[in-house]
Amino acid sequence: MPNAVPALREADALPQPYLLFLGDIAEPGYAKTAFGLRDWARERCVGEFACREATITTGLPRLTPARARALGARAMVVGVANPGGRIPPAWLPPLLEALHAGLDLVAGLHARLGDLEPLRQAAIAHGRRLIDVREPPPGLPLASGRKRSGRRLLTVGTDCALGKKYTALALARALRQRGIDADFRASGQTGILIAGRGIPIDAVVADFAAGAAELLSPDADPDHWDVIEGQGSLSHPAYAGVSLALLHGSQPDAIVVCHAHGRERVLGHPHYALPSVEETIELALRLGARTNPAIRCAGVSLNTGGLDDDAARRAIEDAAARLGLPVADPMRGGDAFARLVDACLA
Amino acid sequence: MPNAVPALREADALPQPYLLFLGDIAEPGYAKTAFGLRDWARERCVGEFACREATITTGLPRLTPARARALGARAMVVGVANPGGRIPPAWLPPLLEALHAGLDLVAGLHARLGDLEPLRQAAIAHGRRLIDVREPPPGLPLASGRKRSGRRLLTVGTDCALGKKYTALALARALRQRGIDADFRASGQTGILIAGRGIPIDAVVADFAAGAAELLSPDADPDHWDVIEGQGSLSHPAYAGVSLALLHGSQPDAIVVCHAHGRERVLGHPHYALPSVEETIELALRLGARTNPAIRCAGVSLNTGGLDDDAARRAIEDAAARLGLPVADPMRGGDAFARLVDACLA
Repeated sequence: MPNAVPALREADALPQPYLLFLGDIAEPGYAKTAFGLRDWARERCVGEFACREATITTGLPRLTPARARALGARAMVVGVANPGGRIPPAWLPPLLEALHAGLDLVAGLHARLGDLEPLRQAAIAHGRRLIDVREPPPGLPLASGRKRSGRRLLTVGTDCALGKKYTALALARALRQRGIDADFRASGQTGILIAGRGIPIDAVVADFAAGAAELLSPDADPDHWDVIEGQGSLSHPAYAGVSLALLHGSQPDAIVVCHAHGRERVLGHPHYALPSVEETIELALRLGARTNPAIRCAGVSLNTGGLDDDAARRAIEDAAARLGLPVADPMRGGDAFARLVDACLA
Repeated sequence: MPNAVPALREADALPQPYLLFLGDIAEPGYAKTAFGLRDWARERCVGEFACREATITTGLPRLTPARARALGARAMVVGVANPGGRIPPAWLPPLLEALHAGLDLVAGLHARLGDLEPLRQAAIAHGRRLIDVREPPPGLPLASGRKRSGRRLLTVGTDCALGKKYTALALARALRQRGIDADFRASGQTGILIAGRGIPIDAVVADFAAGAAELLSPDADPDHWDVIEGQGSLSHPAYAGVSLALLHGSQPDAIVVCHAHGRERVLGHPHYALPSVEETIELALRLGARTNPAIRCAGVSLNTGGLDDDAARRAIEDAAARLGLPVADPMRGGDAFARLVDACLA
């Protein structure tokens, strides 16, 4: 198997299993990372740990860092974020306790763990690592454009924040449940924590973004599938360049276009109309054909959150009839989702 | 005039006029930056300085750093690059001499000036700056997508390295010669040295690339033109994301598509056919319309280097007839170029 493109080194994998840190958080909306890890990497989470003030829970066993270490945990992951992404003083004692107990610290916050002097000194003293998953690996290559072996699927959005990561996770899980050798490939911080590895594409220097995407899904066996987490949208006024670099570098054989039912304006940019699903499919296939002329659209992932079951079913059926493609909400699963998985493999 | 998008700070302008440093170079191909500065920023170059081994010259007066300082120079610019972009030991004494004479040092090499300890210490001792123009300014914003006042032109390429910077410089100069208020806006290192300011778009973290492009051509008077240096190509397997971010953030009213006569494969990627000029126009207009629905193609800049005058004239006329657009080689100027400038203003 040719392998001119280097794979991410084994050393870039995050230390696992995890102890999930919930800070002093009382608002479940701030704990999406912890809930995502529970839902998608349950087998790699030994338990949770929190300040006394925290009122949320993942339902996993509540463990001290020392107990978690004894049960095999290798890192404590910050599974919460307050607005601003800071590390408040109240978190310092539990973070230090984890280092003292022999756990590395892993976070994807705006604030860097290593910028906090007490953490930095404790990490050195205990021989532990402070890992910020927003930091891309060093030495990324420029993209070569060379076709790689194995098969690839990329989730492509009409916008940000509507289910591209969730869809990729659900598709990778469904493929594995069918006995297919498949990997979820993470391109953003929460996905990286879940997968235990990946590259935060939007944090890479622009010249190297497509090269990073090539590195993210290296040569593989001919029947292996990489299911790659999409970023942004090709029509987004701020992030389209990131999305195009990820599309070109991923060289997907199949795309699944992700859309949120009823969303009509770009999130955070209300003066921009959302592109239609049809436009998004056509544009992604046209641009993606540059590095993989065999690219095709397998179907659509429709986020129907907020609709009741009947309304969701109708929205999915209407979209499928209009587009002539399989449409499903992975959160709801069912026959529609099975047909979408079939179409990915077709 | 609205000005929610901050302009580049005055402090980001490079210290000028320049003394051009030619190192120990004997090969003119390694001195493109020095020749570009002589050709496009002659009024801001007081002279040249070189090691004894150098055999090239820009034709400008040969001055010591002390003499250049007395004549008003504020910085010595490294106008040459050896393969690898390193700073060889032979350059250290003249670079130190410049700092000692009261000049800042400016470079766009792969190697950073500040990574050389003797330079760093001498700069501190003499209160001078070491400026690497490959380093983007800090605190770049995310793109807002908001329409800005003033008029903008972007050069868009079928490939890298075929005249996008030269075309933008020639168009900006031609507009000013017609009495139009116009600025060349630099998006790469050589352009930044020539303009004395700008942002190296390809060195910006991907998420902020479109925001950097917005910052590069801020709100301006309604009749003012920014002529923006393009980067890469929308069909380039490695750099398309950079090109799209620059297109979206620039919001050009007009594009001029740049092509090299006879080039059929992507430079450095021979397994990729070059897109046609027609495809490039259509794709750039389609993608650019997302942030400026009024975008139009003014014409084509055709690099006819290597052709004799008759063959160049025929190539330009043939392309103009085929495309139904003004086509010119700015290096050759003439009526064809005047018609291209007319079309930009139309």
